[in-house]
Amino acid sequence: MAARPGGHNLAVMNGPKEKVLTLDTMNACVKRVEYAVRGPIVLRALELEQELRQGVKKPFTEVIRANIGDAHAMGQKPITFLRQVLALCVHPDLLNSPDFPEDAKRRAESILQACGGHSLGAYSNSSGIQPIREHVAQYIQRRDGGIPADPNNIFLSTGASDAIVTVLKLLVAGEGRCRTGVLIPIPQYPLYSAALAELNAVQVDYYLDEDRAWALDVAELRRALCQARGHCRPRALCIINPGNPTGQVQTRECIEAVIRFAFEEQLFLMADEVYQDNVYAEGSQFHSFKKVLMEMGPPYSTQQELASFHSISKGYMGECGLRGGYVEVVNMDPAVQQQMQKMMSVRLCPPLPGQAVLDMVVSPPEPSDPSFTQFQAEKQAVLADLAAKAKLTEKVFNAVPGIRCNPVQGAMYSFPRIELPPRAIQRAKELGLAPDMFFCLRLLEETGICVVPGSGFGQREGTYHFRMTILPAAEKLRPLLEKLSQFHAKFTREYS
Amino acid sequence: MAARPGGHNLAVMNGPKEKVLTLDTMNACVKRVEYAVRGPIVLRALELEQELRQGVKKPFTEVIRANIGDAHAMGQKPITFLRQVLALCVHPDLLNSPDFPEDAKRRAESILQACGGHSLGAYSNSSGIQPIREHVAQYIQRRDGGIPADPNNIFLSTGASDAIVTVLKLLVAGEGRCRTGVLIPIPQYPLYSAALAELNAVQVDYYLDEDRAWALDVAELRRALCQARGHCRPRALCIINPGNPTGQVQTRECIEAVIRFAFEEQLFLMADEVYQDNVYAEGSQFHSFKKVLMEMGPPYSTQQELASFHSISKGYMGECGLRGGYVEVVNMDPAVQQQMQKMMSVRLCPPLPGQAVLDMVVSPPEPSDPSFTQFQAEKQAVLADLAAKAKLTEKVFNAVPGIRCNPVQGAMYSFPRIELPPRAIQRAKELGLAPDMFFCLRLLEETGICVVPGSGFGQREGTYHFRMTILPAAEKLRPLLEKLSQFHAKFTREYS
Ligand SMILES: Cc1ncc(COP(=O)(O)O)c(C=O)c1O
Ligand SMILES: Cc1ncc(COP(=O)(O)O)c(C=O)c1O
Repeated sequence: MAARPGGHNLAVMNGPKEKVLTLDTMNACVKRVEYAVRGPIVLRALELEQELRQGVKKPFTEVIRANIGDAHAMGQKPITFLRQVLALCVHPDLLNSPDFPEDAKRRAESILQACGGHSLGAYSNSSGIQPIREHVAQYIQRRDGGIPADPNNIFLSTGASDAIVTVLKLLVAGEGRCRTGVLIPIPQYPLYSAALAELNAVQVDYYLDEDRAWALDVAELRRALCQARGHCRPRALCIINPGNPTGQVQTRECIEAVIRFAFEEQLFLMADEVYQDNVYAEGSQFHSFKKVLMEMGPPYSTQQELASFHSISKGYMGECGLRGGYVEVVNMDPAVQQQMQKMMSVRLCPPLPGQAVLDMVVSPPEPSDPSFTQFQAEKQAVLADLAAKAKLTEKVFNAVPGIRCNPVQGAMYSFPRIELPPRAIQRAKELGLAPDMFFCLRLLEETGICVVPGSGFGQREGTYHFRMTILPAAEKLRPLLEKLSQFHAKFTREYS
Repeated sequence: MAARPGGHNLAVMNGPKEKVLTLDTMNACVKRVEYAVRGPIVLRALELEQELRQGVKKPFTEVIRANIGDAHAMGQKPITFLRQVLALCVHPDLLNSPDFPEDAKRRAESILQACGGHSLGAYSNSSGIQPIREHVAQYIQRRDGGIPADPNNIFLSTGASDAIVTVLKLLVAGEGRCRTGVLIPIPQYPLYSAALAELNAVQVDYYLDEDRAWALDVAELRRALCQARGHCRPRALCIINPGNPTGQVQTRECIEAVIRFAFEEQLFLMADEVYQDNVYAEGSQFHSFKKVLMEMGPPYSTQQELASFHSISKGYMGECGLRGGYVEVVNMDPAVQQQMQKMMSVRLCPPLPGQAVLDMVVSPPEPSDPSFTQFQAEKQAVLADLAAKAKLTEKVFNAVPGIRCNPVQGAMYSFPRIELPPRAIQRAKELGLAPDMFFCLRLLEETGICVVPGSGFGQREGTYHFRMTILPAAEKLRPLLEKLSQFHAKFTREYS
């Protein structure tokens, strides 16, 4: 038997031994990760809910979770057709039931046909069920006015989060000054900062222009890039359009300029387009990066690398819990694409219920199908409701002194800027809190409203914001907005 | 506007530019990943299936995928109760249907009660729905003869794969000779080698003893550890019990010895117990690491760090496509546990259908419930069938000269050793293939049987194996085994 390093056996007798895995010895990159959307404020919200259940008296009767884009949790009803088909897929005995429309049955049968053993319980190909990849390609082609999409460039995923992390993972390389840098918007959806920290890549911030309704300005991209080139190797540029948390919808001109910039500067483009169905403002329209890229023609259309992400969590369906999504890659090196496929195969496959629902989202009932009318009505009702709430939010906030809110052109959030009195900022500093975190914590304690401080998404130094979803039910939203506005006034008085 | 580095704009005019992301510039760790279970042999199987569909003549009429533990894909039927409840959760209108038993309805209602907005479409807590974590804890407690489990130590996951990678990720640290080393069995389930390559940790191999039915020997652990200490910092020890691909079930004595070893050598234990319900051999019994650890008493029970993994993909349910599982952590530093929770929150949550099915697996119908009898009957039928197939496989293989197969005590695979003639080995080398890969590819081309070469799992130098699942339907399995044995004889003749 080989010799063993001395001393270890003594541990058995020498009382408490050190843990193997401690804050000091664990993965330092993981330690650096921050994720505000589910951070301390949400933990506190959980505690408050528990206290309420236990009968503890509070100045409110329920906690309102306006912190996360989780439509069903806020009362939005699932789209009937999606759930009918999914139930049929899960329990095919129901195919004999008279309670399901014919097109739902046909759809379920065709999905099951493509599953191993005709069961959602079989692993699928790692990149997703082949016919669903084909339906996604057809959807993209329709969406983009006929510009073709190749099913082999489409990879289904466990929500968009999974696909975004996968692509970032491919991009990460180098050490020291050669470490991969990735440009991300500020404010951003914190998945990006978290994934970059975990992967030990360099986060390169570019600021959206609050004074121009959170527009993206190529001059600012250039500033960020040049500055970053001093200490890392910037290789990718992330765009979130429509924006989270900022709610802006980018113009075609802007997208063209961004593509030209990425091409000139040799940056891989990552377009997070999970809110592509969530556009509300008059004059705003969703333009996909893929379409604009292709319409720009060569050399852009033939060379610029792009990954575009979509999800079943947002839009009108809001099926967050099922974890479905996809990425389309464009102009990716085929050898790298193979590597991506291999990497995905290690986790076996995305969940099949999410894949099935994605299938329905990308190829919804046609006008001749029995489910068409109801499907369209439900979809339009959700989107119209969101549009009304977007408008209401902007209006109420902008009527309040000390709050300024850009139009919510799209997505599911308002991101108002708030003035905080110097004494409140002082007090927050004493408590070791970001000033807007202090504000949000106080808001939660006094009103039960749970929103996320701007510091969780990033913001210009010296400005303060919070993110609030527009998802609360219409009849709750107005009182909520008013309560919040009153709290801001009270808070301002208290610290003036 | 800031200056930009010269030359980049020229790219627009200078024809084909280099891609940003190429094999040379991509993440080198990802490039090193190998994953044989879905490797070249499976890609070839896909092609063959396509050729068959197109009417190309082959010496076989179907491809038999005995390469992956995917029960439903091989024709195993889902357990009725699981699918009834899941259908009710997905489409709660069905709660009014007379076609579902009362206990299925009650279960669906209680799961929905715990979901945001009573919908599977809401995100759950990142560590899973709280009552389901509690049911998992109760299941573990029952399984382990009353030894308590704490729901706060249980984290639901997207299949076991997800949880395994998460724990490995926490453990990875250091550079050069201080890089984290992780001991894994050889042969192994290749998720481990793949994840370690991706995370840039050091894979430390310990060999299972084929001559003693793939037993785990502490002397071999010690050899591997001592050798590794020369070039890395070994910090974790992974065990797969029951074994994949090797099918052995560890004895209680062996598990005790492993725990003692891990304790003395300061190793974090990772017990992959996804096959805990799949034990067939007489005299074999599943002992959980948690139970043995707790029964050993202090200092082991109070100090030894352990993570144990389970999944809904295996057992009698085989719900791979739903992607559900959990990890229980024991004696983990609470600060690290918080970090783990944070890390999981970045991906939002595990898929809710997988969580729901996990709930039923860990708290199945009770004797007084209407679904009890059918549930038990279906469960026992699947397990009895697997047990019979395990025995048959061993028997048929061991009757063949040049094939030797250890008993399939548990899990879902046989991993027979095959003799290959020197000329076949020579020929494989000329083709740049591992000899058993050459064998498996030829097998696939001539018989349509898809199995994975031993080289994909690791094996002692100079030995050759393949892994074949015991999942094909009973009436198909015997002819399959015979076809395979005949092919081996023919192959041996051809190259002798
Ligand atoms: C901009 C953006 N990208 C990606 C995601 C991830 O969504 P999922 O993983 O649920 O698809 C979200 C979720 O809120 C988001 O807002
Ligand atoms: C030993 C072992 N661990 C983990 C897994 C992962 O299973 P899943 O991610 O489907 O739960 C498998 C799958 O085959 C396995 O065999």
